[in-house]
Amino acid sequence: MIFLEELDRKRAYIEVNLACRMEELKGKIPTPLFESMEYSLLAGGKRIRPMLLLEMAGSMEGSLPLALALEMIHTYSLIHDDLPAMDNDSMRRGKPTNHMVYGEQIAILAGDGLLNFAFETLLDGIPRSHADRYLAAMRIVAEAAGVQGMVGGQADDVQNEGNIQDIDTLESINKRKTGALIKASVMAGAIMANKTKEQLKYLEQYSENIGLVFQIVDDLLDITGDASRTGKETGNDSKNNKITYPGFYGLEKTVKIVDELYHQSLDCLHKSGISNDFLVELTGFICNRDY
Amino acid sequence: MIFLEELDRKRAYIEVNLACRMEELKGKIPTPLFESMEYSLLAGGKRIRPMLLLEMAGSMEGSLPLALALEMIHTYSLIHDDLPAMDNDSMRRGKPTNHMVYGEQIAILAGDGLLNFAFETLLDGIPRSHADRYLAAMRIVAEAAGVQGMVGGQADDVQNEGNIQDIDTLESINKRKTGALIKASVMAGAIMANKTKEQLKYLEQYSENIGLVFQIVDDLLDITGDASRTGKETGNDSKNNKITYPGFYGLEKTVKIVDELYHQSLDCLHKSGISNDFLVELTGFICNRDY
Repeated sequence: MIFLEELDRKRAYIEVNLACRMEELKGKIPTPLFESMEYSLLAGGKRIRPMLLLEMAGSMEGSLPLALALEMIHTYSLIHDDLPAMDNDSMRRGKPTNHMVYGEQIAILAGDGLLNFAFETLLDGIPRSHADRYLAAMRIVAEAAGVQGMVGGQADDVQNEGNIQDIDTLESINKRKTGALIKASVMAGAIMANKTKEQLKYLEQYSENIGLVFQIVDDLLDITGDASRTGKETGNDSKNNKITYPGFYGLEKTVKIVDELYHQSLDCLHKSGISNDFLVELTGFICNRDY
Repeated sequence: MIFLEELDRKRAYIEVNLACRMEELKGKIPTPLFESMEYSLLAGGKRIRPMLLLEMAGSMEGSLPLALALEMIHTYSLIHDDLPAMDNDSMRRGKPTNHMVYGEQIAILAGDGLLNFAFETLLDGIPRSHADRYLAAMRIVAEAAGVQGMVGGQADDVQNEGNIQDIDTLESINKRKTGALIKASVMAGAIMANKTKEQLKYLEQYSENIGLVFQIVDDLLDITGDASRTGKETGNDSKNNKITYPGFYGLEKTVKIVDELYHQSLDCLHKSGISNDFLVELTGFICNRDY
């Protein structure tokens, strides 16, 4: 299938560049810290966030550091989420989690280090020709990653564990914990590409939709997926008493919601006037990763 | 004493502005996360880093966000250092540590949040008139905070615990763990103030000296200080088998080293051509906080 080949090619491009960026640290930082950061950053993963950014922004100067920073921020959040004090997960992407291999101390510092390195990468990548747009994109990423976005969503998530409340709370948490950084990937790319206000409006809707659906599909895979394919333990959410979409709506209705969100996403993308076949297929991939 | 009054006034200025910056988050992020961040950020402390930056940079636009970001980065590092998996400290600045009050989960996220908020603060504060210098200062802060600086030093520190090696290792750890961010406070301020290459050379020596002495004095206070004044448990370093200067050289020689570094620091400051009486007194204060 051509899309999957294209997906692999683009994923490989992102991974090569992540590896090159890490290479710049080699020998300059403590070895266990380096290995721990590299272990999680190059542990596979779908690379959805950098891919969305690159599809939106194209190959203009500054796109790559933005894309790499998004993946570093995403990876740091996974390392900290998996910690014994947090979700206490032992497997991720088919491999033992960071702290299982390097211990809690190095895992905490590898997370801190990757978040900081994301900003160093961004600061190193400021282009001369369109610095204003780049700094605006950087601001979008920073806010999405922070306490008003991902960190805030995670804080609400750990506070609500085992205490299932209304669907609004669930949606509000997902929107920040997972949705914010996915939205930022699209919007930062769109700002870089100098899209019009009208286009940004539809892309905002598009990115909010796929951010939401991404989390719902993740919840579905936790129930229906098998560990050898998802790369992590399944059944974790119910084990941890985590509030999820399928837990609220049941499987059937949740699948229907995903389908609706998929069609809405395509509609928004179409209305935004962006014509990108790969992005259309990528949207389908995000909405139903069971390819 | 006039210096101490001036010190208090400047400290209060920094604290008011930290509080104002936090206020912008109020009601926008989960309450426990907000309270946890505010608890540690406004828990007192000497505010040495923002003070050094402001003395170097003066009151030009952009100085304040740089100063506030330095203190946020310093505070996040304290929260993560104190965690049970790290130093497992229960008291800090005369109060229970963050995780003792808010739990490990929120403490980890408050640290992540403060690091991220530091960069948001920096991005919000980019001045129109001298953006290049400001971004260069930002780059200095980011590198000092990261894996080549503070995080790297901390990683080496946790790896070396209980395994005392040579004095070079100790110095290399201190240089990054504590020294890097103090050096960055001075150098980022100096870049903002557009100091000459010759001046930067002496300020680099000055800031490395006071960064080193700062850690040594901290080690000394852990032995000679009393908990009611230092605000944290004393004797922690020997309890944790931490390598320290007094542990290597003994008290008497360590005090002598501090004295030498103090005089060298004043010499560098003088040679840099900066004439700032408060900064001279602040240097003395850093070298011997037993005022």
